[in-house]
Amino acid sequence: MTSSLPDDLWPDVQPETARRLMHAGLECFARRGYHATTTRDIAAAAGMSSGALYVYFPSKVALLFEIGRSGHEQTLALVEGAVAGNGDPVERMRGLVEEFTAWHARRHAVARVVAYELQSLPEEEYRVVVKIRRRIEQLVQGLVSEGIEAGVFQVGDVRAAVRAVLSLGIDVARWYDDRSRTSPSVLGRQYADLVLRMLGAAPDLRSPAGR
Amino acid sequence: MTSSLPDDLWPDVQPETARRLMHAGLECFARRGYHATTTRDIAAAAGMSSGALYVYFPSKVALLFEIGRSGHEQTLALVEGAVAGNGDPVERMRGLVEEFTAWHARRHAVARVVAYELQSLPEEEYRVVVKIRRRIEQLVQGLVSEGIEAGVFQVGDVRAAVRAVLSLGIDVARWYDDRSRTSPSVLGRQYADLVLRMLGAAPDLRSPAGR
Repeated sequence: MTSSLPDDLWPDVQPETARRLMHAGLECFARRGYHATTTRDIAAAAGMSSGALYVYFPSKVALLFEIGRSGHEQTLALVEGAVAGNGDPVERMRGLVEEFTAWHARRHAVARVVAYELQSLPEEEYRVVVKIRRRIEQLVQGLVSEGIEAGVFQVGDVRAAVRAVLSLGIDVARWYDDRSRTSPSVLGRQYADLVLRMLGAAPDLRSPAGR
Repeated sequence: MTSSLPDDLWPDVQPETARRLMHAGLECFARRGYHATTTRDIAAAAGMSSGALYVYFPSKVALLFEIGRSGHEQTLALVEGAVAGNGDPVERMRGLVEEFTAWHARRHAVARVVAYELQSLPEEEYRVVVKIRRRIEQLVQGLVSEGIEAGVFQVGDVRAAVRAVLSLGIDVARWYDDRSRTSPSVLGRQYADLVLRMLGAAPDLRSPAGR
């Protein structure tokens, strides 16, 4: 299964051995769930001893946390970039949804573990992740509000709309897999059109996504 | 935790002991995942012996399958009812999204297990569930197509739109919990407004959901 994990999954994690352990942990968690996975399983999947694992991660929880934290940091960076980009709120929201959706398709294995196993984190570690998640929500909410002020978005309930925008992208990780026929970038464009309509921006229907 | 499970979760399952075991299984799967749960855990949570469990369910997989099958049957019935209901496609789609969303909020514990643990089912059992899921997709697709023909929906890519409609509702189970401030029915109305806009039906923005 390692082959299905892209090399650039955690470009910032050093050394390569730590990255290999995170790959192995991700595979094990994705296959059997966090609780049914032992550090021995992870070490074996990485071709190492349990003792070697502890050099890089003091516990199974530390490894799960690192996967969750880095996954959230990556999506936060992507959202920050899109919100701070050029163009009016419509263009920036389009870019945000395209990238956010494509990330969850491309990184569906990471995103699944991030979305469904993080409740296993202890309180303190969980709070770190929730803080990043709140920041993402605030950024999207800011962009929606900017669009409303500029008169390009019309939204009944801003919080519900923000939740729906993010929820659509996150849920891609549940159903997307390597056999999905729609590519991550085409899916991103389709979802951007749907989201802009949800926000009352009504993109031109004569030029649908997938073009 | 049993108290948080509504009594009417599986009204059709008889006898009451089988229902009690399904409740216990659901709680264990939700807390620690399917693979980390043993039949002994489930029996203990239901205040029974493992031997007694096997009278009702031949295996842990059989119990997971029954939870998944009945969850899917419930949402299928709800979608069938909405699609066959009175009113034009806009009204029926509104009803469908309201009920589908509210179900996933109200039944979030079941829906989470249904959405994220079913990959643990053996091929044959998995196919039964996938068949129900396909039927749900076909029904929603039929209603979208009907709305397009009637000139009340405008959709760029029908498959993407159908996926988004269902995805929004299903993902509610990931983030909704008993502390969520929005009630299932209000959330349903908010999402119905968002979905109708996604489908180009543009409900009146001056009467937002939550009214």
